[in-house]
Amino acid sequence: MPEFKILKKHSHSQARLGILKTAHGDIETPAFMPVGTLATVKALTPEELTQCGAQIILGNTYHLYLRPGHELIADLGGLHKFMNWPHPILTDSGGFQIFSLGALVKITEEGARFQSHIDGSPHFISPEKAIEIQQALGADIIMTLDEPTPHSADKLTTEKSLRLSLAWAKRCKVAHGKSDTQSLFGIVQGGMHKAMRKVSAEGTVEIGFPGYAIGGLSVGEEKDLMYEIANYTAPLLPDDQPRYLMGVGTPEDLLQCSGMGIDMFDCVMPTRNARNGSLFTREGKLNIKNARFTRDERPIDPACDCYTCKNYSRAYLRHLFQANEILALRLNSVHNTAFYQNWMRAIRLAIREDRPFDFSWQAITVDD
Amino acid sequence: MPEFKILKKHSHSQARLGILKTAHGDIETPAFMPVGTLATVKALTPEELTQCGAQIILGNTYHLYLRPGHELIADLGGLHKFMNWPHPILTDSGGFQIFSLGALVKITEEGARFQSHIDGSPHFISPEKAIEIQQALGADIIMTLDEPTPHSADKLTTEKSLRLSLAWAKRCKVAHGKSDTQSLFGIVQGGMHKAMRKVSAEGTVEIGFPGYAIGGLSVGEEKDLMYEIANYTAPLLPDDQPRYLMGVGTPEDLLQCSGMGIDMFDCVMPTRNARNGSLFTREGKLNIKNARFTRDERPIDPACDCYTCKNYSRAYLRHLFQANEILALRLNSVHNTAFYQNWMRAIRLAIREDRPFDFSWQAITVDD
Repeated sequence: MPEFKILKKHSHSQARLGILKTAHGDIETPAFMPVGTLATVKALTPEELTQCGAQIILGNTYHLYLRPGHELIADLGGLHKFMNWPHPILTDSGGFQIFSLGALVKITEEGARFQSHIDGSPHFISPEKAIEIQQALGADIIMTLDEPTPHSADKLTTEKSLRLSLAWAKRCKVAHGKSDTQSLFGIVQGGMHKAMRKVSAEGTVEIGFPGYAIGGLSVGEEKDLMYEIANYTAPLLPDDQPRYLMGVGTPEDLLQCSGMGIDMFDCVMPTRNARNGSLFTREGKLNIKNARFTRDERPIDPACDCYTCKNYSRAYLRHLFQANEILALRLNSVHNTAFYQNWMRAIRLAIREDRPFDFSWQAITVDD
Repeated sequence: MPEFKILKKHSHSQARLGILKTAHGDIETPAFMPVGTLATVKALTPEELTQCGAQIILGNTYHLYLRPGHELIADLGGLHKFMNWPHPILTDSGGFQIFSLGALVKITEEGARFQSHIDGSPHFISPEKAIEIQQALGADIIMTLDEPTPHSADKLTTEKSLRLSLAWAKRCKVAHGKSDTQSLFGIVQGGMHKAMRKVSAEGTVEIGFPGYAIGGLSVGEEKDLMYEIANYTAPLLPDDQPRYLMGVGTPEDLLQCSGMGIDMFDCVMPTRNARNGSLFTREGKLNIKNARFTRDERPIDPACDCYTCKNYSRAYLRHLFQANEILALRLNSVHNTAFYQNWMRAIRLAIREDRPFDFSWQAITVDD
């Protein structure tokens, strides 16, 4: 069972420096988890992820359940062995992906009936089934099945939805039972309504989990509202347990929300942006497709120590990207993944040295 | 100027074990050169190529001339620096690619006028221009501009064509002048006609180059005819200089033609097959898409020491390929590249130990 130790508290914010211990290794927090949807963080090897500084990755239960199937992965020794990643893994419950299917999903108290986005085949996932799948995958941290609430939902709909999530959370805990190697985290919903966030947080904490996620944010709402709800919800969760803000976000989001006492993050942004030619630097994003980089001999970011920045020019990266070369996607993914890990390292260092977060990041395109 | 040393001659065939010395390092021959068309061997980093055993790669002048342009590469320090490959490079002259444009190319004594396959823009490449471009790229070994003859060409057409290639070869030699770091190889054409191969070989040797290629083979003719022409042409070339059979071929071709005294090969086969899910083993090719590999825990080839075979199961590789994951293309490319390099190592070892080539390879799909 993961053990969470807070090493230091930040006097300039609510941020905490911690260590989350799992059967597959320790994670320094605040931590960012690269997303490995289909048993691979797109374009990268496990060794490259480690070299970039990643200590834990996220797998998507919904996708792995459909392809190649959780039973196949279990038969082949579990997700760690299957994908050759010996370090910690967290799997989501599939809830977010299933409920994103829209018209293809039908929800009852019992569970979610849906059609595969790949072949339209019918499936049913209950809280118990979500746990069974995640046990088969064998991640170090797994999540309860929840129903994410649309950000535009009114209070009544939100309350109905979070009550369902609470009922499912209880069933997930029962189904999971006790485990020495796998930990089940609860998820707080409640949409954009503080009162509902409070009900959800209190209900989830009452069930009792070794860690808690804040779900249903960064789903289309305004940035300020996201920050407001995250900042309101975080302190409703036990101080001595890890807090995970799901699906967030930009470098600035990670900084701001670390300051609210969040310990874990995941987002497809760094790898997806990389594959679109959008590269992170401290000054903003650089669009490698831009003609201004045609003869630019500099690395993406002269201050970056990643493999890509140590060995390749912007001119070369632009050429590869324009020519649709696979190596472009690889080198870009290495850089963005390293950028995110270096960013988290800077946040952790500021907490360790108790310095204010005197750096920031803006979602602008840099012309330099 | 590259220096070629023959270390050992095979008593069971015409094969030779050699060392080709260049300004960027030594190449053990017989050697196979992975193809790096657009300043990248598709899906692989330079470090991975080295780890697979590659000592020299090939760049395509036609493609690099169009994108990103030879002048840009020269301004950025040359092809080695641009692509972060510090080891030997050979560039072809672009002849094969230009003449493959068919209706888009018009040939005169002066050179070849053609339209870009990318944007239809008009271009003109003379023998002098082909040398200028290759000098700008800065490869260790460059090639004369030639007109490859279609394999179905009659004797008269073939002779006319090879006479043009000979005239161009002379002009290339003059344009190239003297260089301590870059070597210009001549190319023997002559289609499928032995008499014309003899005329071309004698004419090319008379001009005088530090190495010779056999061009215009493996372009659609029967395998036996290819072997017959290669076997006839190789001994027409100076015994003490490197012989390069362009665009060939399968593992069996490399074995057979090494036995004819060929020292260098290149082919897109290993990397292109990898991207199509076709993986080389000693027993034949394995189609990773096949459902029989769904739960196969074995590596592609238990006898292979490559990164892919040491770390991943066929089941995982099949899953990645079916899911269109970039990592599939990478891991497959690593394996096929390593297979080709290991194959050449086995050929070199047999020559070194003067054992007969008591192994062979068949282009069959293995069901195992």
